[in-house]
Amino acid sequence: MDDRVREHARTLITWSARIEDGDDVVVRVGPDAHDLAVAVVEELGRAGANVVTTYDSGELTRAYFEGHDEEFDVDPPHELALLENADSVLTLGGGRNAAATADVPDAARQAYDRARRGISEARLDSKWVLTAHPTRSLAQQAGMSYAEYQEFVYDAVLRDWEELAAEQAKVTDVLDDASEVRLVSPGTDLTMSVEDRVAVNSAASVDYDSHNLPSGEVFTAPDATAGEVTFDVPMTVNGRRVRDVYLRFEDGRVVEHDAAEGADAIEAVLETDAGARRLGELGIGMNRGIDRVTDNVLFDEKMGDTVHLALGRAYASNFPPGHEEEANDSAVHVDLITDVSEDSRIEVDGEVIQRNGTFWFEE
Amino acid sequence: MDDRVREHARTLITWSARIEDGDDVVVRVGPDAHDLAVAVVEELGRAGANVVTTYDSGELTRAYFEGHDEEFDVDPPHELALLENADSVLTLGGGRNAAATADVPDAARQAYDRARRGISEARLDSKWVLTAHPTRSLAQQAGMSYAEYQEFVYDAVLRDWEELAAEQAKVTDVLDDASEVRLVSPGTDLTMSVEDRVAVNSAASVDYDSHNLPSGEVFTAPDATAGEVTFDVPMTVNGRRVRDVYLRFEDGRVVEHDAAEGADAIEAVLETDAGARRLGELGIGMNRGIDRVTDNVLFDEKMGDTVHLALGRAYASNFPPGHEEEANDSAVHVDLITDVSEDSRIEVDGEVIQRNGTFWFEE
Repeated sequence: MDDRVREHARTLITWSARIEDGDDVVVRVGPDAHDLAVAVVEELGRAGANVVTTYDSGELTRAYFEGHDEEFDVDPPHELALLENADSVLTLGGGRNAAATADVPDAARQAYDRARRGISEARLDSKWVLTAHPTRSLAQQAGMSYAEYQEFVYDAVLRDWEELAAEQAKVTDVLDDASEVRLVSPGTDLTMSVEDRVAVNSAASVDYDSHNLPSGEVFTAPDATAGEVTFDVPMTVNGRRVRDVYLRFEDGRVVEHDAAEGADAIEAVLETDAGARRLGELGIGMNRGIDRVTDNVLFDEKMGDTVHLALGRAYASNFPPGHEEEANDSAVHVDLITDVSEDSRIEVDGEVIQRNGTFWFEE
Repeated sequence: MDDRVREHARTLITWSARIEDGDDVVVRVGPDAHDLAVAVVEELGRAGANVVTTYDSGELTRAYFEGHDEEFDVDPPHELALLENADSVLTLGGGRNAAATADVPDAARQAYDRARRGISEARLDSKWVLTAHPTRSLAQQAGMSYAEYQEFVYDAVLRDWEELAAEQAKVTDVLDDASEVRLVSPGTDLTMSVEDRVAVNSAASVDYDSHNLPSGEVFTAPDATAGEVTFDVPMTVNGRRVRDVYLRFEDGRVVEHDAAEGADAIEAVLETDAGARRLGELGIGMNRGIDRVTDNVLFDEKMGDTVHLALGRAYASNFPPGHEEEANDSAVHVDLITDVSEDSRIEVDGEVIQRNGTFWFEE
């Protein structure tokens, strides 16, 4: 086995998920993530954890929708019990076809997500981490050869996370004291309140309230969003391509939307529930190990010179203790990304903290 | 998708597991059983069931043992809760290497099995069914081409199960009234008490107390076994080849054992716990759709002209209501098979019911 696979697994178990002796762990394995799963399960054995591996296949998801009548039972007890009793849920992404669920009807997907809120909560209450094994399908999605894509993934994942955390702390310090953030970029002029919110220093570890490997971003939960934004980084949302998504906000809600491609996919997200029209996240990408867009949000949203906003659910970690219930509530959390490397600036209470991708402390 | 895969899935869901609307189902998917899993999950969706798919990989099992110190937590709560809340557990066998766990130390395997008795009980308390998808690895194990092996599997699985059940009922009627069974074959002369036991008409459906697809056997739980037996059908036990296993019984217990190949694998089974030295099952194969040995117990033990005995755990279904606790208790259930097509007979209370593979009603 490639040593980098083992190093990826060790980083996931020790740095990211902080697995301890006796932890009850669920590992969700993508169909082509087998090799990473082997390394992860060996590390979990070494850590003295107990493991259930689930099979996380888009083709099976699609088949279930194909058969089902679309009226779903709420939080099936076997799955709920599995997750409520899990100390940690590790998702090892890596399928064979990034578009495997592209023809699942939106109404069915929305109904399914709404019926499984308790299961979703249980997972988010654990030491959960999402990572991805480099697969040929993801390489194709990125438009890269397999070998080149492997290099790309391990450059993003195998970093000095403590060093990056120290750099990111400069940005969280500013945001924690701030009232308002303004984002200006071509097609974008948006203001958001961040008053009384906690910025997360997302350094790829649950000890940093960070649940992605790779991570490398600072994020908070915006409120009272007003203005317009254009997301010029192309993405895949629920198996469908979206490009140049445009949103206009009034009083925190999306009141107008459009897209050069995939407008129906965005429409479906917005219609899931009331919270889907509000922002759950403002994130600033700071992982300079990610040097290009690969049509995979796990990587794209962490890239330096980008900012992302998520429609839907906010993370409790962005709220002071006792105020977690103020977090925007939704069955969805869909990230959209904009490039801020040119003709762009981020202002915090009127002060420019980043211009054309360069932070004040990098000048 | 091959129509036979869909037919296999329909047989599993409707005839075998009797899945009903709202059932909470766990599907255990072998790494190469993906295509069957797609068809099964679609059928489960159609039936209105709720599905958790687990990833059942020998390589992951082996990796866990590789990392772990071999002192296992008893019945980890997340896995126990998953199975205790499941109405049905469907195992879709189909790996990439039948020897994937061959180098797992016996002591570790035994300790692991002993620590997971509650989980094992929970699965056996559900509408559980074990089936297999024809994979290239299983074809290789059988010494057959892939296309030929697919034919073999579907001939065994896609049968008129009601017709076979009617035939098997002739044998269960005899066994239900019987006190003693004697098996005579080259290297074998064994007597077993079947007094007060219930013979199961195993017709591949939970409604027949039958949990294998394919099935096609009659089985009961023997007691007070005495004499000797030679299992001349070669098999793979815990990833290791065994051949010509010899056992001698006194007062129901194995007091002597040997094998031409794999004696250590048998020794390890016998040492798991006290119950592993006693028989849990006497089965008579009656599926004439299975016409050859393929080194896969799921098929081999059902073949016409064979008899199998299992070391270890007995099934509660072989005991009258209220007497289930008399069933032999063990963490293992290991079937061993003998050919009875030549120089062989099965006697029930002194009457020959089968000679050289031919039942009295077939003459």
